[in-house]
Parts: sequence; structure tokens; C-alpha cells
Amino acid sequence: MLRDSAEPFSPPPGFARLRRLMQEENLDAVIVGPSASFRQLIGRDANLTERLVALLLTAQGATIIVPRLQAPLYEHLPFACAVWDEHEDPTLIACRILREQGCRTVGVNREFWAGFLLRLQRHAPEIAFGSAAALDLMRAIKTPAEIDALARAAHRLDAVWVRFLDDYPVLTGRTELELRAAIAALMQQHGFSSTAWIDVGAGVNGASALHHGSDYVIQKGDPVVFDFAGVFEGWCADICRIATAGAPEPDYLAAYAVLLDAQEAAFQAIRPGVLASAPDAAARAVLAAAGYGEAFTHRVGHGIGLDAHEEPYLVRGSELPLAIGMVMSDEPGIYLPGRWGMRVEDIVALTPDGPVRLTQAPHSLAIQK
Amino acid sequence: MLRDSAEPFSPPPGFARLRRLMQEENLDAVIVGPSASFRQLIGRDANLTERLVALLLTAQGATIIVPRLQAPLYEHLPFACAVWDEHEDPTLIACRILREQGCRTVGVNREFWAGFLLRLQRHAPEIAFGSAAALDLMRAIKTPAEIDALARAAHRLDAVWVRFLDDYPVLTGRTELELRAAIAALMQQHGFSSTAWIDVGAGVNGASALHHGSDYVIQKGDPVVFDFAGVFEGWCADICRIATAGAPEPDYLAAYAVLLDAQEAAFQAIRPGVLASAPDAAARAVLAAAGYGEAFTHRVGHGIGLDAHEEPYLVRGSELPLAIGMVMSDEPGIYLPGRWGMRVEDIVALTPDGPVRLTQAPHSLAIQK
Repeated sequence: MLRDSAEPFSPPPGFARLRRLMQEENLDAVIVGPSASFRQLIGRDANLTERLVALLLTAQGATIIVPRLQAPLYEHLPFACAVWDEHEDPTLIACRILREQGCRTVGVNREFWAGFLLRLQRHAPEIAFGSAAALDLMRAIKTPAEIDALARAAHRLDAVWVRFLDDYPVLTGRTELELRAAIAALMQQHGFSSTAWIDVGAGVNGASALHHGSDYVIQKGDPVVFDFAGVFEGWCADICRIATAGAPEPDYLAAYAVLLDAQEAAFQAIRPGVLASAPDAAARAVLAAAGYGEAFTHRVGHGIGLDAHEEPYLVRGSELPLAIGMVMSDEPGIYLPGRWGMRVEDIVALTPDGPVRLTQAPHSLAIQK
Repeated sequence: MLRDSAEPFSPPPGFARLRRLMQEENLDAVIVGPSASFRQLIGRDANLTERLVALLLTAQGATIIVPRLQAPLYEHLPFACAVWDEHEDPTLIACRILREQGCRTVGVNREFWAGFLLRLQRHAPEIAFGSAAALDLMRAIKTPAEIDALARAAHRLDAVWVRFLDDYPVLTGRTELELRAAIAALMQQHGFSSTAWIDVGAGVNGASALHHGSDYVIQKGDPVVFDFAGVFEGWCADICRIATAGAPEPDYLAAYAVLLDAQEAAFQAIRPGVLASAPDAAARAVLAAAGYGEAFTHRVGHGIGLDAHEEPYLVRGSELPLAIGMVMSDEPGIYLPGRWGMRVEDIVALTPDGPVRLTQAPHSLAIQK
């Protein structure tokens, strides 16, 4: 059943930007299932399940495809509502609308279920379905208000770190899991609605990207890598800092100075028009010159917004040009398996005045006891 | 980089069943991203992110496609390991393996990201990609040991309900959210590692499938619908029961008797070889005969296992034949908007002796104060 909205379609602000990007990408329509893009466009979450919920946006208008049980959640919105019953195939409804509106090229969000996409492709073999880069680009370039929201989330995470250092002057003798629980409690107290991850790696454990926390008891001299992220008022923040249990070894201090240089090199490379691969290359060059090229085993960063990981990915091979409004992490690392690891991470916004760090907690190694 | 496993491939038990189902479905290969099917085949979870992790299973062997950072998690398994670096496109690696092994028809799991599938389709246009029903069927038919595990989870949920009724003899004056929190705490105490949902709907709120709990204060005479589900030792359980704050109105009692008859009719229709639509039709017939046909607004049930919702879906139009080993919910409901709602749910296993209820908490309305 297709119900036309009583009111003429008056699109939310994000729609205009998306429509422009769709034109550039030659997309007649996009289909957006539950995801950060859906949240951005509709202003609310939907569950990602076997019951298809999706926004279908064309040049003519917007339709929400929704199971009857959930229809009341969407009927007040200024969209048409295509309600499907439990025994119906909602992808048939989507194909009918696409045909009625003459759509030949249709983009879907990256997280859309393959099971639904394959049904769309089978029902409408004449339509070319593709990945909607437009959705990623819509979210990659933030408005000033969105950057303010990301800055508030980042400052909250700064506050968690500063408070943690105050509350836990002694690390020696504590377990990684104890400290992880402490960060989790502080994040909750500081208003984070959820955590994306909290990784605590002490001593040799800091050298593994697979290490999230354990019963390992922190020893005098251990460096401890803290990487934690979460959602504050709908927007993601992510930070990595290092505290040590007493003075670390001199070679660790020397490597940390190189790491900060690498992070700053990537930061300075975050400029409008340069490819997203450039900051990665800049950090990598600094680390390689100091002999740590092989020890930096991951990309230097990822975009962040409604999702903790989104475009732009700062990685070798990316051909996406950076643009004003993009917000991304800058997080080089050095990992020496069996010895130690280190990583430092800030969230950086690319503004008309150049790159600006949204996370502002001190970068210095926090020498605790 | 493709590393061949040092040892010859010795597949886990689930693989043999899957390979048979693949043959029946004419699939040369399946690609399984993070999902319940991945968990079933590999024995562990993987994160569903922009970094592709997938099992590629062909007639010749099995390969895990994994980002370098996560490779240590999989290198001990008896599979080949195709490790990709941050700047590589893992779907190119998958296509190369598919071509090397001569695969022409490839199934993916339903939750596989469309973004990855579209890249596979672009890189290998000569390969027909489809939805792997084999994966759904592999999980839909449980082994006796898996049914035992589901029974343990169901009995735990029974215990939560019985304990809740003991602990909360007085419902009048409490809010729905208070009671939801109580169920959550009891589930945790009873060993559930996570909750899938806890819906508490009192009075008119019970008539809405969108109602999950609110500050509404329960009034004398209100029926309260409790639907809660979670994961115990890796397996899902799900139940719906009703308690009332004092004696409910006579028409509610009369309707509840009809509802129990409808649930029993669906239960009796769960037989090997009948279509999954039959139990739905059986419950619907009972409700329609009593004038509640329009008031039963959803399918009568869903399969349950490692996922809370999976095949078989007991819904009008399903052409899947039920088979011994399938486990599913049986949950008819009656919803009269503005007045009240009711639903009763059990988990039912189809055994060689016929259908057996795994949830066993009493069905009677629990008349509290």
C-alpha cells in the first residue's frame, strides 16, 4: 500500500546536499537502509533486521518503505509511506516505485543487506544498482553545526582522560580490565550514551592491535596504551593517549618523540584538495626515516561523525580529495611485537583556517606511578 | 598475500552439512561475512566493519580473508589465510580465489554488506552472485546438541519470569521502565550475556508493537505484556507472558482463552513437511473465528538459534517446508488499539516425536496486585 503524504514534500536540510551529490554521481535514486546515513536523513534510528525499512529518494520525492508494525513511527514525516504487510516482499514495492519514476541508476548505502540488494537486482534487472558514494560524501563533509557537535563530543572525551589521570595516580598493580572499567564508568558519568570500544594494552600487550584488555597486572615501568571511543549526543569521539607506570625506558621516550612528529606531519598534510592518502604518507615518511616504517602497520586515520569509522579513510591508495568540513582521526602508531607499542590519536577538523584538533588533551606521556 | 595452511584442510562439523546444501543449491562457493553463520562455522565472532573479514568456502577448501591486523586471530585455524593490507581491496583477493577455483555461482550471507557485494560483482562480472539460502538452511536445522543448548537458554528465561513474579507481587503503581529494569537485572543474574529486547507494555500500551516501555504508571486492572529475549551461552531465547495488576476485565480473560487456543493450534501445525505458512494460518483461523482476525497484525513466529530471528519464518506465503530439527517461536497476538493488547510466546522445537515447547513457564495470566 502506497500512501501519499497529505502535505507536499518539504525535504529536511540534508536532502538538498544529497540530491546534488546524486546528480554528480549520475544516480536517479538512492535507497538507504538503517545506518548513519538513514539517521542523518530521517533524524532517527531504525533497526537493521530481516524486516526491511528504507528511505527511497528520487528527484521527484521521498518514500519510506516500512513494515506495517512500524508505520506509525514514520507517518508524521513529510514523505510518502509505502507500508508492507508481513507476507509481502518489500523489494517488489521498491522496484515498482523505481520503475514508476523512471529510475535507471540506483545507489544503496554500503551497509545495506546483500540479501535485499540481490532481490532488487532480480526483480529489476534493467536497473543498474551501485554503491552510493553520495551518501558517504554527504556525511563526510560536515556543516559548522555538525563540527561543533563533534567538538563537544571530543572535549567530553578529553575530560574523561584528564579525570582518569587524576583519579588513578597509581597504575602499578592494577589490571588492564580494572582500568578499562574505570574509563567506561567515567564515559558514562560524562554523558556518553554508548562506548564504541575501550582498549587498554600495557607493556607488550600495547604492541598488538588485537589486545582489548586482560587480567595482566601492570608492572613498574610499563607504558599503557588507552584507545577509547563513544557516542555523545549522537556524535562519535575517539582518542588514544598513553600513561606509564613510573618512568618508561629511554628508547620508549625517544620513539614517542618520533611518533608525535609523525602525527604532526599528518596533521599538517590535512589540507583542502590533497588526496586522503597524503596524511598517511606524511606520517609514514617520518616513521620510516627513524627506522619505524615496518612498525607502523595500519592506516593513519578514518573519518568520524555519526559513525565511528566513515569517509575519509586516510590510507595509501585513497583518491578522495580532502575538503573543508571533513573530520578525521590522525593516529599513527609504532608496534614492536614482544616489546611495546604506542599510538597517539586526535580528531582533526579541516576548517577554512586549516586543520584544527578537536581533541585537546595534552599529548605528553602521562607519567603516573 | 595468500598463505596456504601448513596442515591439510580438516573441516569443522558444520562444513559438511553446508557443502551438501551448497550442492543442492548449485553453489560453487559461499562467502560468509561476520554473522551468526560465520560464528557457527568459525566458532567465534568477527566485527562487521569497513574492514572485510569473510570465510570463502568452495568444494576444494576454505580461506579466511582477513585484514593483517586481525590475522593472528585466524592463523591457527585449519584454513588458508588470505591476509590483506590496509591499502588493498580484499574483494579483488576474493575474486582471484573464486576464479582460480573455477567458481561460477557464489552465495553470500544475507547480512553481507552491499558495498562489498557490488565490488565483487564489478570485479567478476562473469560470476553469478546470489543469496546463500544454504547458510540459512544450515542454521535452521539444529542438531540435538544445539536443541539442548536452546532448551537451556529457554529454561533460563522461564526462570527469569518465575523469579520476577515472586519478586514483584505488586505491579500497581510501578512504571513500565522500572519493570523493564527489573527483568534486565534478573536476566543478567541468570547468566544472559546480552539482552536482545525487553518490551513492557501496560494497559493501552500493550496494543502497540512500537511500545518498548515508558514512565506510564501501572493502574489497578491493567494487563501488562512482557516480551523479552537474550543470549545465554551463545544461544537465543525469547518469551512473552502477561501479568495483570489485579483482576483484568472479563472480556480480556475471554480473549486470552482464544489466544491460547490459537497458540496451541499453531503448535499442533508444526509438523515435518508442512509449509512454514501453515502454523500462521492455523492460529489465524482460530482468531478470525472469534472475530479477532484483523487484530492479529503480525506473523505467528520466527526461527531462533544463534540469531534471535532466522529461518523458518512462520508467515503467510512462506514455501519452506518445516523439518525435524527446526526451532521457532509461536506467538500469536490480539491488539485492540486504544484498549489493550495481548501476546503469548513459546519457543518450539520440531523433534522426531513432534513439536516440543522449550519455554515452559506457565501460560496462565499471572494475576498480581
